[in-house]
Order: sequence, then C-alpha cells, then structure tokens
Amino acid sequence: MNGCEIGVVGLAVMGENLALNIERNGFPVAVYNRTAEKTKSLMAGRAAGKRIEAAYSIPEFSALLKRPRRVILMVQAGPAVDAVLRDLSGHLEAGDIVIDGGNSHFRDTERRLAAMEAKGFSYLGMGVSGGEEGALYGPSLMPGGHVSAYRQVEPILTKIAAQVDDGPCCAYIGEKGAGHFVKMAHNGIEYGDMQLIAETYDLMRSVAGLTPEEMQAIFTRWNGEELNSFLIEITARIVAFPDAFSGRPLVEMILDKAGQKGTGKWTSQAALDLGVAVPTISAAVDARILSAFKAERVEAAQVLAGPVPTPMTEPGEWAEALKAALYASKICSYAQGMTLLSHASREMGYSLKLDEIARLWKGGCIIRAAFLDKIKAAFRADPGLPNLLLDEGFQADMAARQAAWRRVVRLATETGVAVPAMSASLAYYDAYRRERVPANLLQAQRDYFGAHTYERTDREGVFHTDWNRGEG
Amino acid sequence: MNGCEIGVVGLAVMGENLALNIERNGFPVAVYNRTAEKTKSLMAGRAAGKRIEAAYSIPEFSALLKRPRRVILMVQAGPAVDAVLRDLSGHLEAGDIVIDGGNSHFRDTERRLAAMEAKGFSYLGMGVSGGEEGALYGPSLMPGGHVSAYRQVEPILTKIAAQVDDGPCCAYIGEKGAGHFVKMAHNGIEYGDMQLIAETYDLMRSVAGLTPEEMQAIFTRWNGEELNSFLIEITARIVAFPDAFSGRPLVEMILDKAGQKGTGKWTSQAALDLGVAVPTISAAVDARILSAFKAERVEAAQVLAGPVPTPMTEPGEWAEALKAALYASKICSYAQGMTLLSHASREMGYSLKLDEIARLWKGGCIIRAAFLDKIKAAFRADPGLPNLLLDEGFQADMAARQAAWRRVVRLATETGVAVPAMSASLAYYDAYRRERVPANLLQAQRDYFGAHTYERTDREGVFHTDWNRGEG
Repeated sequence: MNGCEIGVVGLAVMGENLALNIERNGFPVAVYNRTAEKTKSLMAGRAAGKRIEAAYSIPEFSALLKRPRRVILMVQAGPAVDAVLRDLSGHLEAGDIVIDGGNSHFRDTERRLAAMEAKGFSYLGMGVSGGEEGALYGPSLMPGGHVSAYRQVEPILTKIAAQVDDGPCCAYIGEKGAGHFVKMAHNGIEYGDMQLIAETYDLMRSVAGLTPEEMQAIFTRWNGEELNSFLIEITARIVAFPDAFSGRPLVEMILDKAGQKGTGKWTSQAALDLGVAVPTISAAVDARILSAFKAERVEAAQVLAGPVPTPMTEPGEWAEALKAALYASKICSYAQGMTLLSHASREMGYSLKLDEIARLWKGGCIIRAAFLDKIKAAFRADPGLPNLLLDEGFQADMAARQAAWRRVVRLATETGVAVPAMSASLAYYDAYRRERVPANLLQAQRDYFGAHTYERTDREGVFHTDWNRGEG
Repeated sequence: MNGCEIGVVGLAVMGENLALNIERNGFPVAVYNRTAEKTKSLMAGRAAGKRIEAAYSIPEFSALLKRPRRVILMVQAGPAVDAVLRDLSGHLEAGDIVIDGGNSHFRDTERRLAAMEAKGFSYLGMGVSGGEEGALYGPSLMPGGHVSAYRQVEPILTKIAAQVDDGPCCAYIGEKGAGHFVKMAHNGIEYGDMQLIAETYDLMRSVAGLTPEEMQAIFTRWNGEELNSFLIEITARIVAFPDAFSGRPLVEMILDKAGQKGTGKWTSQAALDLGVAVPTISAAVDARILSAFKAERVEAAQVLAGPVPTPMTEPGEWAEALKAALYASKICSYAQGMTLLSHASREMGYSLKLDEIARLWKGGCIIRAAFLDKIKAAFRADPGLPNLLLDEGFQADMAARQAAWRRVVRLATETGVAVPAMSASLAYYDAYRRERVPANLLQAQRDYFGAHTYERTDREGVFHTDWNRGEG
C-alpha cells in the first residue's frame, strides 16, 4: 500500500511522539529509523493497532507514501540530516516535500533548501518546540521555506499543533531558513527566561532564605498573575519536589552544571552578525558556560573575596520586588529577541510577521506565556514597532517596575550573588533609554589611535583630528 | 636589481608606515599597491631618498625581492587577501614566504595556510597592533604559522617591533592561525578596556558632575598608578581637548555612535564556539551596537522611565572608588581573554605561551599597560593557571577593591546610568567565585521538559525524573 499521508524519519523520542500525534489526528503515518530495533519496539508497543506503517529501508519507506510524498525528518541536527537527505533523494520524485523538523542551523537549512530545490523537490525547515510532551499532544510549529509546500502540509500541521484561543500554534513563518531562524530565537529567549528564573530562585534561596515551600507558594502565585507561563509553572513544581534518596528537595541535590545544545549560542552569534544586541540571552549562555567550570568555582570560592553576608530583614517583602525584577528583565529579553527577528526579517528577506510569531508561541512551546498575548497585540497595533520597549503598554509596565528592579539588582550586587542576566537586562534598558551614551569617547579614542574618523553632533560630515596637536 | 630584503603589498596607512619602519631599521623594501597612484605618491613623498623600491605590477614586485622572497600583505581582511594571494602565487617559488599582516579571521588564515603550503610556499598570519603610530615606530607583532618561515623573518620583525624592558614585542605565537587568533583576542580585550573607560567617564561626567579639567587630572593621575596604560593616557588627553568650532571639549561634540571592524564580534563568537565565557567583552560589543541605534535611543529617552536623579554628595570621594571599579573590572576582562587563549591553545593545538603573549602586549599595541607585567609574572609562575583571578596577586587586588566596586555598580544602578561591561565583570566575578550557582534549577527544568537528564551532588550517574509523578 502507498496510502500514508506523511512519513517520519527518525524515531528518537521527538520523532516517535510526533508520529503518534499525527496518527491520533487522523493521518496514517509511515515511519523509518536507521536502526531497525527502534522501529520494531515502536511497532510492538505504542504504535500497535494504530495506522502507523513501518519501513525498514528507504525504498520501502518511499513506497508507503502518497504522492506527492511528504516526509518529516526528526533526526539529530548536523551531518545526520545531510546523510538522510542524500539517501532519501534517490527515492523521491519531483514535487515531493521534505520537512526538517530538527534544530538545524538556519544557514544549513538555506543550503539544503537550495540543493533540494535544484533537484526538483520542495523543502521546509520547521522549528518544533514543546519537548516530548509538546510533540505528542501539540507542539508549536515554525515552518519556513517553500510556501507552496507549506500549503500542502498545512492541514496536517495545523491539526497536530497546540491550539490556543486565537488558533493553532502553527503558521507559515517565511522564506528560506526563516522557520529555523525563528526557532533558534525562541530557544535563545528560552535560555534568557530560564536564567532569569534561576537568578530569582537564587536570590530567594541564598539571600532571602526562603524555604522550598515558601518558594513554591510564590512561584505558584506568580503563575496566576502576569508571569503566568509554562516555565514558572514547572519551577513551582520543581522547587519543592521531594527526593527519594535524601528526603530533601530534589533540586537541591542536582549538580549545578548546566548543559546546552547550541541554539542559545547560535542566537548570540547570529545577533552579532546582524548587529543586534541580545545581552540578556548572551548572559544566559555565558552563565551556563561558567556553571560547567565547577571544579574551578569550588577552588575560587575558597580564595576570592566577597562581601560580608548580611541577613535580610523582612524577606517576605522582597517577593514583590523580585517579581517586578523578573518581569522587567523578561520584557527586555523579549525586546532583544523580537528586535533580532525584525532585523533578520529585513536583512535576510524573511518577511516575518512578529505578531503572528508571538501568537504561535502562546501555546505548545517552552516559552508559552500569557504575556505573549501582549507582545502579539503590540506588533499587531504597530508592525513596524522598532523595539518592544517603545510600546505604550510595555513602557507602563517598565515604569511601574523599574524602581523595584533596581533595588533587587542592588541587593544582588551588595550580597555578592551573581545576577548576570538581570543586570544585563537593566543595562540594556538604561542604555536604550539614554539619548547620549559615552560612545563619543570610544569614537575619540578610535580616531586618536587609528584615524577611524568621527561624526559630530552639531554639523554634517566626517572628521579626523590630530590629537597630538593643540586643537581639533 | 633583486636585492630587497622584504616586500610590502598594500600601501594604505598601515602598510605604508610598516614599510617605512622596516626601511628605517636597515632593510631595503619593495612596495606594491593595486592602484599605482598610491605608490607614486609614497615614492614622491615619504619614501623619497629611502631604500624603498616601487613595483607597478606583481611580476615586477616579485623580481625586486631576494630569494627566498619575503612578502608582507597589508591589505584589507577578507576577499582582497585571497585575490592578492591568487595573483602573487604565480610569481613565487617554492620556499618563498608570505605574511598576512591584516586583521584576517583565524579560520581564513588556517585555510590559506593550508592552500599555500600545498603549493610549496610558507605562510604566516601575523597580528599587527599599534595603529598608525605603532606601525611606523614599533608595533606589537603576533606572527603564527610555519615556524621555519618565522625564523627567516625574525631578524626583521624583532627589529621593527616595539621594544620593552624585557625584549622586543614580537615572538612566535604558535601553529596555524594562532597569530591571528591572539590578535583577535587582543582586540576583544581592547573593546572591553575602551568600554570600561567609557563607563567610568560617563559616571564621572553624568553622575559626579566633574568638569573636563577635573576628569583630565584624574585620568592623568591614574596613568601614573596601577592603571598606567596607553588607553588611560590618551583618555586623559581627550577629555579636555578643545574644539576649534565650539570652544567646548571636542569629545562633547562627537556623535555617540561607535563603529566597529569585526574583531570584537569575532572574539565573542569564537569564545562561544570554544565554550569560554567572555561576558565583559561581549557587553562591550553590545554597547557599541546599541550606541548605533541613536535615533531609537533619542525616542526611547522621551518615553522610558528612569530613576529620579539625585545630586551626588562629595563627588571627589568617588574618584578612588571609580578607580577600584575600573581596575577590578579590567582584571576580570583580562581573565576572560586569557582563559579564551588557554582554551584555544588546547582545543586548536596552538601551544600558546600566555606569559610571552602578555609580555609582547606590554609595548606597541593599543592595550599596552603596566599591568601586563603582572599578568606575565602570573603565567610565568604557573603556566597552567586556569584563571587569572586565581593568581595570588590578583586575588589580593580583587579583595582590596571589591567593596568599592560594588558601591560603584550600585550607584550606576540607582542613578540609571548603564554600566554593562562593569556589571558583566562583577557578575563574572561573583559567578566564578560561587561554589554553587543556580544551574541546578536549569538542569531540573531541562529534565522536566526535555528529559535531558541530570547529575547529582551526592552520587555518581546520570538521572532522569518523571516530574509529574510524586517523587524523584
């Protein structure tokens, strides 16, 4: 039979769950995995009795699919994607559609799209967010590439995606590598969110001395307010989750070395190439890097001086200030991420719709949050908004919180608790709202030692001064 | 005649000055530039009567040189270098030596070195720092690549380089692209230094309300103390340098939009690839990026709330605290840069000698500073020092300054003056000296939504928890 609506290549947890999600939504699926054991165990287990057909070779897989064939790759980003495309290409026909649903770098996607297009195939690079649960019950989907190909898979994708009040969390993102670029930015923002929450937790625990139960109560309360989001929700569950071995909260027993899979790093690197500042996201990436230097930190803790700790008076009062600091820091992080998207859109011809991107992040994905509705509204009201901070609603949010935010950063500074992402957000806010930053001195220095020239505030033109003479 | 010891291709200001420097030191030089006008004007002007021979074609240039030929390229980094190498290759013989003295990316240098080696030529990628003045009177030189080729140009390079108390500011850096990697890191550190000075200047001017003359006096005094360095020296000259048009200090009339040429950005990007945190350098790059958004900042200044400014009491007292903050921030920035070098050395097989690199930065280059002698001593005493902050001398320096540094960051936080690089340095210090950072929460979150697994503090192994069940 060749009646499968779509095929999935790669049956690690994300691929397996996505196949099950597609089938549950009414579409017969063909599946293929490089090692047969994985396929067999899926077929004998979770796929038993479902409209899922297994193939044990690429030709067999190809034969199971309706024409034009629609194939989603759920294999590890990198050389594995190129290897699958090579194997698959010989068994596809003109007009067949390949969708890469992994975390590929957008530049790789652009290269592959061009190569597949040259062979007569259609190609989509699709960001998939939501982790295991999302893949199974409704992820946020960010497909980009050939728009005509998107139209042919739209009925399936919009059905398997998370559904929110204003539609499915799936929409065509834009040309070329736009889907993977937007997914990368999503992950960069996720790094920022997670680090900001971790810093807040650190202040609660190390400075305010709150108990796990107190922290859980606060995060639970926050999840019902403006910070409502998946990450706050799971943090509330995590902070007091018991450990079977020690009887203490499990999180306290987890080693403080964070891993990373590269998308946060790519976000910082791409932002640098595009000339966009994403300091909160970069600080989050750097914090993970530093966390990995555990042995050095243990040594440094013995020899590097810090402030004398002073016990906090009325720690309860600080919860409101921490909430303000977290929310204000988060707004700055999203302002950076959305600015990255608007620049990428312009420079790379993606034609991104920022309101729609904010909307499809409202459900399914890791950064899903009530507050994305406000971001959607801001870009719907003004698609050319240069920075989220300039939206009137967010201006007011910042105005209401900036004093408390400063108190929190001051507290961290005085108590010696590192808050790299929070202070990067604050520096971003203060630099962005500054009519005159001290870059005039940088330009003078560059002109002094490198004859780089400068502009003036009071007249047109490009100037150079011989700074060793008396007068400019 | 074919008696020139060395040839220079590219006669923009750096190439021209380097050629004059070489000739002044006793070596006849051949010069060539793509456009003949530049060459003619040099020959008619500054080269007149000197042992400088002009060529107006590559074959002619090649014929002027002694065998093996030694050629320094001083052309713009990027495609121009490849174009010159292509043209030049047809007119070289086996054993000839090409030295790229531009700011090439180390990966380009590694590609070119391999290609030139395959043709039988020797290749060096050489960082040159010191701006126009340095090129003419003694730059800091960072040559890397074929060591046998280095030995053949060593007598020339060590003679034209800046000379300091412990030798010439030139030494063989390491294999492959090591020279350009180290030059890139030098420039990243330079970005950090410049931004930290700019933030200090901003606090002096905007918060302490010091006059240009007061600032000049302070920077001049600092240049005689532990902050003694080229950049502090020129800042002292710049802050009160008069403007012929307005009668005000020229620096006040310079537009606050900083340019950049890419090496700072490359440093941040390379650090991310190597898994090294350089947050102060990245903050400096981001500060330049944000400075360029001038029109947005002017708008944002009208609408984004900040703290109510409070006049400072006894601004004079703050000078000592600012000095401590600048110095402590600078140590953290160098700690990041040196850590980047030690990781690059290991990962890319450069075999860098960090003490020697610190030594050759003592003169000639933009970051030249008394304090590099302490860095040299630290790495000479312990070549395996994992981080500059762990050196006993620098531990003591930090201990003596950390309280004042915190007061300065607090002041900036409360007055709404952005100090992104200073606060990135402080967050780096506080994270690095922290035995336990809150990355345990990140790991719990990642395990929650992505089954990424985690390690524990109390037992070996890799663990995963079903966080939706009752107990881990």
